[in-house]
Amino acid sequence: MPVISVTLLPGYPADVETRLVARLATAARSVIAASPAGTTVFVNHANTYQRDGNVFSSGGPARLVASDVVKGFLEAMQQRDLDTAQSFLAGGFAMRFPGSAVMHSLAEMIAWARPRYRSVAKDYERFEEVWRENDTVVFCSGTLRGTWNDGRDFSGIRFIDRFEVVDGKITRQDVWNDVAETLAAQA
Amino acid sequence: MPVISVTLLPGYPADVETRLVARLATAARSVIAASPAGTTVFVNHANTYQRDGNVFSSGGPARLVASDVVKGFLEAMQQRDLDTAQSFLAGGFAMRFPGSAVMHSLAEMIAWARPRYRSVAKDYERFEEVWRENDTVVFCSGTLRGTWNDGRDFSGIRFIDRFEVVDGKITRQDVWNDVAETLAAQA
Amino acid sequence: MPVISVTLLPGYPADVETRLVARLATAARSVIAASPAGTTVFVNHANTYQRDGNVFSSGGPARLVASDVVKGFLEAMQQRDLDTAQSFLAGGFAMRFPGSAVMHSLAEMIAWARPRYRSVAKDYERFEEVWRENDTVVFCSGTLRGTWNDGRDFSGIRFIDRFEVVDGKITRQDVWNDVAETLAAQA
Amino acid sequence: MPVISVTLLPGYPADVETRLVARLATAARSVIAASPAGTTVFVNHANTYQRDGNVFSSGGPARLVASDVVKGFLEAMQQRDLDTAQSFLAGGFAMRFPGSAVMHSLAEMIAWARPRYRSVAKDYERFEEVWRENDTVVFCSGTLRGTWNDGRDFSGIRFIDRFEVVDGKITRQDVWNDVAETLAAQA
Amino acid sequence: MPVISVTLLPGYPADVETRLVARLATAARSVIAASPAGTTVFVNHANTYQRDGNVFSSGGPARLVASDVVKGFLEAMQQRDLDTAQSFLAGGFAMRFPGSAVMHSLAEMIAWARPRYRSVAKDYERFEEVWRENDTVVFCSGTLRGTWNDGRDFSGIRFIDRFEVVDGKITRQDVWNDVAETLAAQA
Amino acid sequence: MPVISVTLLPGYPADVETRLVARLATAARSVIAASPAGTTVFVNHANTYQRDGNVFSSGGPARLVASDVVKGFLEAMQQRDLDTAQSFLAGGFAMRFPGSAVMHSLAEMIAWARPRYRSVAKDYERFEEVWRENDTVVFCSGTLRGTWNDGRDFSGIRFIDRFEVVDGKITRQDVWNDVAETLAAQA
Repeated sequence: MPVISVTLLPGYPADVETRLVARLATAARSVIAASPAGTTVFVNHANTYQRDGNVFSSGGPARLVASDVVKGFLEAMQQRDLDTAQSFLAGGFAMRFPGSAVMHSLAEMIAWARPRYRSVAKDYERFEEVWRENDTVVFCSGTLRGTWNDGRDFSGIRFIDRFEVVDGKITRQDVWNDVAETLAAQA
Repeated sequence: MPVISVTLLPGYPADVETRLVARLATAARSVIAASPAGTTVFVNHANTYQRDGNVFSSGGPARLVASDVVKGFLEAMQQRDLDTAQSFLAGGFAMRFPGSAVMHSLAEMIAWARPRYRSVAKDYERFEEVWRENDTVVFCSGTLRGTWNDGRDFSGIRFIDRFEVVDGKITRQDVWNDVAETLAAQA
Repeated sequence: MPVISVTLLPGYPADVETRLVARLATAARSVIAASPAGTTVFVNHANTYQRDGNVFSSGGPARLVASDVVKGFLEAMQQRDLDTAQSFLAGGFAMRFPGSAVMHSLAEMIAWARPRYRSVAKDYERFEEVWRENDTVVFCSGTLRGTWNDGRDFSGIRFIDRFEVVDGKITRQDVWNDVAETLAAQA
Repeated sequence: MPVISVTLLPGYPADVETRLVARLATAARSVIAASPAGTTVFVNHANTYQRDGNVFSSGGPARLVASDVVKGFLEAMQQRDLDTAQSFLAGGFAMRFPGSAVMHSLAEMIAWARPRYRSVAKDYERFEEVWRENDTVVFCSGTLRGTWNDGRDFSGIRFIDRFEVVDGKITRQDVWNDVAETLAAQA
Repeated sequence: MPVISVTLLPGYPADVETRLVARLATAARSVIAASPAGTTVFVNHANTYQRDGNVFSSGGPARLVASDVVKGFLEAMQQRDLDTAQSFLAGGFAMRFPGSAVMHSLAEMIAWARPRYRSVAKDYERFEEVWRENDTVVFCSGTLRGTWNDGRDFSGIRFIDRFEVVDGKITRQDVWNDVAETLAAQA
Repeated sequence: MPVISVTLLPGYPADVETRLVARLATAARSVIAASPAGTTVFVNHANTYQRDGNVFSSGGPARLVASDVVKGFLEAMQQRDLDTAQSFLAGGFAMRFPGSAVMHSLAEMIAWARPRYRSVAKDYERFEEVWRENDTVVFCSGTLRGTWNDGRDFSGIRFIDRFEVVDGKITRQDVWNDVAETLAAQA
């Protein structure tokens, strides 16, 4: 136990149902110390479904995987493909970096970064998702490597990004890292 | 839809079952854009349950709420009640702060912090849980306030902590913050 | 088949659950020519139930049996216990008799009936309920007997009453009968 | 709540399953004051089904909608298409009008009506179904309009018909109306 | 898989429900090569149950374990407690031994055995149950030991008994063994 | 009651699901004296199924019917088609006849039988299956007929065979019969 049955209208792709049963098992086991072997989840397809006086013929759409959205954004940023990066952002997107003001555009961010380093890339250790009522928070953490403006290389600088993803678009990014700590140590 | 039924052995406290149905609803809605109104979750109590050739009379124990574990630890640390704080930590506990090595004891951490600030407190903005296969990651973020060793006060310095909680004990803490950024800006 | 399972929060009296399973069986068999032997309905009690982001600890209240409401009203009327009869009526109650205007009070109705017969009673053949989205219509039919104002007795005069019952109160009564036909035949 | 699951063998048309879930919701809400939003009904298809020692490969046939049967009969009668009208009647059909004896044939009824009015049509206000163990009672009510034998028109005369429909055929019709009341008022 | 849910009226002792889930798991695994770990069976208690137009408040009674009935009979026979042994037999009980006619009473059987051996006891290797539509067949097999009428001891003679148990009573016993084979070998 | 629902992954042939629901009904009724009319079993197909952290796309394979395996073996033996007979046997097959040692090959058995009778055939009265945790025991019983080595015919000699069938192969056969009894009676 638990045995979890999910009744759904048919029509979802197999990978969506697979993700659904996996997340339900994980969510259940976050509350109860059930063994994986005893945690059973399965999907039943309902054939006709009425609620609130209406018969529905299809369920709500499948959501994008929020961490995939974030990965897409980060990859486009790393390649400085700003159009693609922009396509992952919601209207009122806001981002904040260590020591920066709240910025609302990618151009603003790039201008802010220019005096700081010539290039930067992220080595990801983990992407982690927090499922919330109406959105998903994605944390990604790992280390930065790149080249300072004076030509010296750097690597292994810890970072963590926090993203809020609503309806498949990033609404907010907050960044923490050890860049200043590293520079102070070097000074 | 979805309609999610969870069959459990009886014996869990009401708040555990409440947490269970809430997390299952959230997990399901992280995959499918179902309306809250159409997301139904309920617990059925099984009366006799056999799996793997055995009849079980009770389910796996309820887990502690991982963010409550973290809150307990942070509160004890803030009050410098190290015995209580220690009680939240697992055997091989490891922690890392900006610019620190990996530390394994609270005493080590306090020694590391002493040259940095006279006192520090956290204003929490959010605690967020990532449910994973066998543990829970808790992120807490907000701002730091306190007093530098030279007597000046500080506040509003962004921080984020990442904790891994296994079986109700914290195994790891990673900390990022803008302390160095702030000091650099003040220099 | 069908096998119908109804998941409910516990707390309903046994007669309510009995009425529920009976009506579900009847409703199902009004759509499909299933044998009674193959029509199975049972109630499961949910132990914790969340929908629309809320955990509910009890279900909607049991409704009164609409035909019992009507029977109570008719019995009180027959005994000219107008206070009791009034207690079965909703605020905007309206009633219409053959040849009458729409009346809104029992006093009005009694005044209307006085020139027509000295006394009248109903022999009921059947009470029948139409279950609707938000209310129940009750039909009762049978024959009238009583005494005309000239002292002659009558009986066997067909009648039918249609009642609308909302939330346990009668909002409307429409009456048809063969009184005029009978008087015409006697003329 | 309630959450109602109906397990059926596959093979029913979509409109039959839609009618089934709608009627089950209505029947449940006639017993319990559940909100429409919280009343969930869905159909599961069983893949192999045994009861009473037999495996069944299809369920009982879908029934006709009883009020559709009545509407078909009434429309044919209004158009004096007696063959079609007759096709809606069961073998031992019986009908009774105000002041009439019990009649068993449409010809008998037409003969009975001839001295009463030259033509008559019904303006329907509502068709209502009472689902019973083995049949359905249909009530239709509204007003009559037409032409008396003396050439004067009439309209707005209240009527109600009660039909019993067994296995898709009408076995009985009982009619009440205010014709005599109207004639008496005109006299 | 399979996940088997059994909906029952409450009231059965725990050992009956335990036997029920065990036998259902075994029956399922006799058809499908499912792993024990993946074979889940649980009992749900229905709270109100209608079938065939009736609401039932309790289920059919629990049956005796047929092999326990047989064991009780055999033990009483071994102790020559004929009254107790008789209590396990149904009205038309019939038994047949190697070379015997069909016998209907224990007295008859004892008379038949007397010329054959002075005493006999059974060393049981196994009791096995065949579950059938309306009764259970119990096989018990093992070896006989005892004393011939000439005083010599014997042992290790293979036997098998087949019993039919209907409603907790033995209706038939058929016995095979190697007694004649053994005697022939000794001759 | 009981109402038994079996959730399976799709893909089993219809006859396997039919056998499954039949055996589950029989197993349930071996524990509870439920009427056949009230014993409902049906198969639900799960669409996506996770247990033990894995999503499975098909269930365990269907097993052969153990009594069919035994029938196939017995038929091949009767026709002295030893290759086919051998194909029904598992690696460590063992068999024991009245008075025989444990034999491991069909050739051994035929050699053992040769001095006993010129030919033998079985008239089967019943095949009965005992479903066990990991295998099935099949009993077949009836009478033997054939020809002794001296040319005389025999018939009506009771026999019973017990077979153990594991994964569709016979691992063991034990035989009891009244051959010696019959010969002794004839002597």
